[in-house]
Amino acid sequence: MTSPIIKIDPKLDLVLEREIDVPVELAWKAWTTPEHLRQWFAPKPWSITSCDLDLRPGGALNFVMRSPEGQEYPNTQCYLEVTPFERLVLTDTMQGGYRPSARPFFTAVVEFNRNGSGTRYKAVAIHGNDESRKKHEEMGFHGGWGTVLTQMVDYIKAGDVRG
Amino acid sequence: MTSPIIKIDPKLDLVLEREIDVPVELAWKAWTTPEHLRQWFAPKPWSITSCDLDLRPGGALNFVMRSPEGQEYPNTQCYLEVTPFERLVLTDTMQGGYRPSARPFFTAVVEFNRNGSGTRYKAVAIHGNDESRKKHEEMGFHGGWGTVLTQMVDYIKAGDVRG
Repeated sequence: MTSPIIKIDPKLDLVLEREIDVPVELAWKAWTTPEHLRQWFAPKPWSITSCDLDLRPGGALNFVMRSPEGQEYPNTQCYLEVTPFERLVLTDTMQGGYRPSARPFFTAVVEFNRNGSGTRYKAVAIHGNDESRKKHEEMGFHGGWGTVLTQMVDYIKAGDVRG
Repeated sequence: MTSPIIKIDPKLDLVLEREIDVPVELAWKAWTTPEHLRQWFAPKPWSITSCDLDLRPGGALNFVMRSPEGQEYPNTQCYLEVTPFERLVLTDTMQGGYRPSARPFFTAVVEFNRNGSGTRYKAVAIHGNDESRKKHEEMGFHGGWGTVLTQMVDYIKAGDVRG
């Protein structure tokens, strides 16, 4: 169900697919509300110390990730597509307002498909070359994105995200 | 009339504004039709030897620019916003399908505003840092973008673009 404009290249891209037992609406809300996103978006014991977002094409997602040792890593991405309850596309090749970024690395596509009372969740990391894909794998794409997805589901099930 | 999401930074960005005496519809068509675009998009005696485009967010604009000495320079950009007769946003930080590019440099915003029977034309080059802005100036942004705009107007007036 990936957008027809997006062509996944198995040599360059990384894909995480999972069926999760939370409804599409709550998964979408957890992804698009700063106070929810900061609760699950960093793999513990890492944390998010600040988060703001402007949910429209060209809008920015800004967050600061904090290591267990207390070092802070600011991160900026730019939303490209925002289709409520269906698809988010965002990239770190640009900042808000489509301004080119200093460290372009990947574009993320996140898709939510209704699956009974749950959600078929798919996240794709699109890279420009083999080196970036490898680096992302070594940084722990599969473990990292899987871990935060589990954190998101647990957070939603704890009842903190309401429809 | 620049899109509210786009914030022009005079230190980083370059702007060309001009009133042109061709209608919005033909200027839009000249920009968005490959067989027209290739006729005016390179400052003569440079030329465009091939051009194809997929006019939607995430779609690619591909073209090959040829120097007077015969050297060819392939170029790929990605459309971000396509608002017919009003605004085009495209970037070389990504290829088609939002895939990060090898040589990210700038995002272009092109705006068409109706002005009587003519058009108020505005093109903005958005850069990520001062170095890129300087490089673009030295490459001849003002002369180059101005020259091809004059070529576009002359081409339209010659009657080759029809509404």
